[in-house]
This record gives sequence, structure tokens and C-alpha cells, in this order.
Amino acid sequence: MSSDPTTFTCPVPLAHYPHVLMAHGGGGRLMHDLIQLVFKASFANPLLNQGHDGALLEAGGARLAFTTDSYVVKPLFFPGGDIGKLAVCGTVNDLAMCGARPLALSAGFILEEGLPMDTLQRVVRSMGDTARAAGVPIATGDTKVVDRGQGDGLFINTAGIGLVPAGLNIGPAAVRPGDVILLNGDVGRHGTCIMAGREGLAFDTDLQSDCAPLHNAVQRLIESSVDIHCLRDCTRGGLATTLVEIARARGLRLHLEGTAIPVREDVRGACEMLGLDPLYVANEGRFITIVPASDAARALDALRRDEQGAGAVRIGEVKDEQPGLLTLRSEIGSTRILDMLSGEQLPRIC
Amino acid sequence: MSSDPTTFTCPVPLAHYPHVLMAHGGGGRLMHDLIQLVFKASFANPLLNQGHDGALLEAGGARLAFTTDSYVVKPLFFPGGDIGKLAVCGTVNDLAMCGARPLALSAGFILEEGLPMDTLQRVVRSMGDTARAAGVPIATGDTKVVDRGQGDGLFINTAGIGLVPAGLNIGPAAVRPGDVILLNGDVGRHGTCIMAGREGLAFDTDLQSDCAPLHNAVQRLIESSVDIHCLRDCTRGGLATTLVEIARARGLRLHLEGTAIPVREDVRGACEMLGLDPLYVANEGRFITIVPASDAARALDALRRDEQGAGAVRIGEVKDEQPGLLTLRSEIGSTRILDMLSGEQLPRIC
Repeated sequence: MSSDPTTFTCPVPLAHYPHVLMAHGGGGRLMHDLIQLVFKASFANPLLNQGHDGALLEAGGARLAFTTDSYVVKPLFFPGGDIGKLAVCGTVNDLAMCGARPLALSAGFILEEGLPMDTLQRVVRSMGDTARAAGVPIATGDTKVVDRGQGDGLFINTAGIGLVPAGLNIGPAAVRPGDVILLNGDVGRHGTCIMAGREGLAFDTDLQSDCAPLHNAVQRLIESSVDIHCLRDCTRGGLATTLVEIARARGLRLHLEGTAIPVREDVRGACEMLGLDPLYVANEGRFITIVPASDAARALDALRRDEQGAGAVRIGEVKDEQPGLLTLRSEIGSTRILDMLSGEQLPRIC
Repeated sequence: MSSDPTTFTCPVPLAHYPHVLMAHGGGGRLMHDLIQLVFKASFANPLLNQGHDGALLEAGGARLAFTTDSYVVKPLFFPGGDIGKLAVCGTVNDLAMCGARPLALSAGFILEEGLPMDTLQRVVRSMGDTARAAGVPIATGDTKVVDRGQGDGLFINTAGIGLVPAGLNIGPAAVRPGDVILLNGDVGRHGTCIMAGREGLAFDTDLQSDCAPLHNAVQRLIESSVDIHCLRDCTRGGLATTLVEIARARGLRLHLEGTAIPVREDVRGACEMLGLDPLYVANEGRFITIVPASDAARALDALRRDEQGAGAVRIGEVKDEQPGLLTLRSEIGSTRILDMLSGEQLPRIC
């Protein structure tokens, strides 16, 4: 039933979408339907159904995490980053969200004939710099060129391998009622910067994308022996979509205190002007951590010791009534349900 | 010096190519220059410089192979396969060429808005079927959608992880004078099929792409304790480019007996008509094995026990004079040098 928020049942059968829409790549309901009905139906295997940002597998006694993402962000360069930096950080972060220490990345380039060589050089240098700073080598790669007009300058795929410490079991299944939800900083910056770049909007402020590698912040949590129940980065679909996914996967209610969620004034202003909700705007350096209430203070301390966790705050908690829902108490004290959008507010955000 | 065939020095500096050309993705000299001067210069790290189809790395005591390829083949469906089958076989084969047993694949899709859902379904089912038949799960994935006119229907990236047996050291560095060169079947089929599909040419025959997973054939070699010096699949740039790369990397001469290289009559005919050389036409199920002469018979026996090695033959040998060259003795007994092409005879072949 489409009115049951705990299932991904498509209100309109997939057969009613005879063609791929932009919204099928937006991280919302249509993308979830596509994944369930097309990809998972054909690829069916146990590794694919772990509900993580990556797959966990055994290899010669080692516990590995394995993940992939393609990057089609537009424009290629934006305040605080570019497609190359994004392609490194995004995949490093997906590994980090599995609790893995990133070991190596692959890089696959699809170039459009006519791309200025100088643009490619800038992107590749940025990738190299970001990978070196993160301490994760780009170990293998591939290049393809497509005809002019059949690409859009430059698309990048990165896949990543990471090593998961023994005994670590992070994922929605570990989330318990009474747990608290932590966030490592203010939300909505990346999407707002992309939009600004695309629409030619200028800010009076120093607003930059939050795009950053998060594996060191996660490492701080692990080293502090925090009992991490769940980690998830808040990319396509933003903080709200990320938490709706967890609420549904675990069949619990996640509840947020709206006043506790940091949003910069310039981000809030830009979003109001354009009719966007910052809770649904993509981030590239923000993640939520769900831990037992007894570990919350230690987890916040650990996060705040890392550059990418300096703004870490507690934003909500896990409840057992109204399973599968994400709720938000607003500034004026009313509580509302946050659902998944059907697509993305802004296409080609990453 | 550009006249020295043992180096990849670009006869025209990269700065003279202000834009990316189709030939930069063709597997020939221009692509090698791009990889050396742009990618390797910026990504510099020891893992990237192993001269393999993938990177070899240690992870928690396990020896892993890691590889990636993007697939932009046009048309999406061709005799004997489609982009989905190709995306599974290509990456499984790159792992196999490292001597690795493939453990898992990732799949990243870049869809163009407006792609018929039915086309996507067919490709995804083919990927699933090919992966299941090969025994390699697609463990993790990603989907992006780009605007109509900024893609070309469907691009796929697959990355793969494999496990390399202890003690196995396969690569150009192990190649020795006196070694023999084996090939697992007739060459030129994949490229000829793609060309036929693209140009609307029809064959009277049952000609199909050779696209197939090769890991079981490699496994036969390993189980037979053959002392494998080098494995390489003959994809972009064909058999000739593959062997020129090895000759240059190792600084030895590879010599081929033209009459020993199997080429189907219909492939030869189509190539003649179109002015192509079948030795430079891409394959997707052909690989060379270089072994000591004393292991040649055992290696051929092992290969022939696998479906993908039924047509295995000895095609040449390794010599120490004229280092860095690939030479071919023709049917009439003359010997000529085979060099790398600057691009690819046929763009978007894989």
C-alpha cells in the first residue's frame, strides 16, 4: 500500500514510467523504486542487500568494504570544490560510513570529444591533491572518449576498497530505541553552492561546499571505542532522506529537534528564495552517527577533535512508537512528518 | 626521441592537443601519452605503476587485484552481446589477467534522460545473467541520470576485486627471451561485429562477438602449475597493440608467426573491405599467455580444456635482439615491424 510509509511500494507502477526521468537519479522515491525493481531484481545476491553505502565482503581472511559512485555534477567547478575533489571525497566517505579504513580508489573517466585539455588537467590535479591529502592512493584507472554532443565534458566514476576492523558491525540493524542522532556540522551547503554556480547567483559571504573526506572523523569515533550503531553521509536527498531511509530500514521512528540542526544564514536565505528545504539539500561532508545515549558525550568529544567534526551536535533521538517515520519538532513546537521526496530538488548535484 | 620505439615519448607535445580527441580513448599512442602526462603525473603512487590490467595491493594479509573500466560501446546491443555483458566480462577479464580469482564487481550507471526503461531492463538482465554464469556477484552499485542530449543512452562503469594466490607473480617483468606466446582463439571478431552493427552491414555467417569471461581459462593454467610469465587480454588496439605494450615495457622483442594467428574468413573479408587490420581490431574474449618454452605444451593442454581456450595456439616467441619491437613474419616469409596506432581504428568499441 502506497500509504504505508514503512515500505517502498511505488504508488505508480514502474511500467507507468516508460522512460528514464531526471528524478530516477535524484536519491528519492523514484530512484529507490528503480533500484529495487530493476537493479536488485536482476543482480539478486546477498552482498547487494546489506543496506550500506557499500558492500561488505570477506577476502582471504580480510573484511573488506567495496563501493562505487559516478559523478556528473554540473558545473564541473564550484565554490569549495570541483568534480575531481567530489569524486575522491564521495567514495572515501562511502567507505568511511561502512566503518572502513579506505585503502585504494579506482578512477574511470568518460571524456567528451572537444573537452579542453586544460579543464581535464585541473580536474585530475585536484583529484590527485585530494587523494594525497586523504592518504588514499588512486591505484587503477580507465579512460573512454565519447563523440561531441554525447557526453557533457567529463564524467568520473570512482570505486573504493576499504578494510573494516574486526568486530565492527555498523548499520541500520544495530539502531535501538533510546539511541541519539549526532550530526557533524551545518547542512545544505553543497547543494546551495552548486545551485549558485549554475544559476549565476552570487553570495556576499564566503559560502563554500562542505565537500571533504570524513574517514578521519570516523576513525576518531572508532579509536574512542564509541559503540557506533549507524553512520550515514547525507548526500543526495540531504539529511532528511538519509534519516527516512534508516527509519524505514529499521522500522523505528527517528525524531529531530529542528532548532538543533545547524543551517547557515546564507544557506537558509538562498533556500528560501528558491523554495528549497535545506534539510533535503545535498551535502558532501556531513554525516549522521547513531549511538547509545550513554556514548553520546564521548562521541561528540571524539568528533570535535577532527576538523570535519568541529561543529558536531546532537540533533535527535530514536523512538519505538510510529515505526518507519522521521519526525521533526519545529521552532514553534509543532511536530511534523518528513517524507522522502520523489526525486531531488536539484538535479546533477554530485 | 620520438624515433626510439622503446619509449612513449609523444612526437607532438600534449600541449599541441588543446582538446580531447576521440583518439585519446582509442588504446593507442595518444591514450598512452594522456595516461602518462596527465593521469600518472597527478596521481603518482606506487600502486598505479605496476603495468598490469589492474592494481595489486595488500589488505589485511590478503593479496588483492583491483581494476575498473567504463563502457561506452555503440550500439548498445550487437551480435553476441550487449553493453551489460561487456561490462561484466571486461572487468572479470582484467582481474583474471592479474592472475586473480574475481570476488565481486561494482556497477555504476550513467543514464540519459529519456532512455527507454525497456532498454535499461534488457541491459541489466544481461549483466545479471552474465555475472551469475561467471559466478561473480555485483555487490554494490550507483545510478546517475544526466539531461537529454548530454549522454548517449547508457554508460556503465564496473570495478572489480579479486584474490591473487600467494606466490603468483604475473607481469611483463617476468617475460624472458626464449618464452613462447600463446593465444586462446581467433582474433578480430568483437570489433568487426560492432562495426557491422554500426554500419548496418550484414554477414551471411554466424559471426558473433567473442565477448566472454576468461577467468576459468586462467584458472586452468594456474591449476596446471604452468609457470605463467604474462597474461594480457587483447582489447582496445587488438592483439598487436597488446604485444607492443609488453615488448616496450620489458625491453625485449616479441616475434609473431603470421600464419599461426587464427582469423576467421568472414572477419578477414570484412576487414579488407573496410581497410582495417584484424591484428589491431579489438577483442573481448581473447588473451595472450607468455610461458617458458618448456611449459608451452602443458599450457596449451590446460587452455584447451576450457570453453574459452578451445582454439588455443602458439603464435610466436620472445627474443632478445631488437628490444622493444613487435615483429611479424608474413605468409610470404617477409618480416615487418608492427607499431602502435595513434588512436583506434574504430571508436567506442567497448
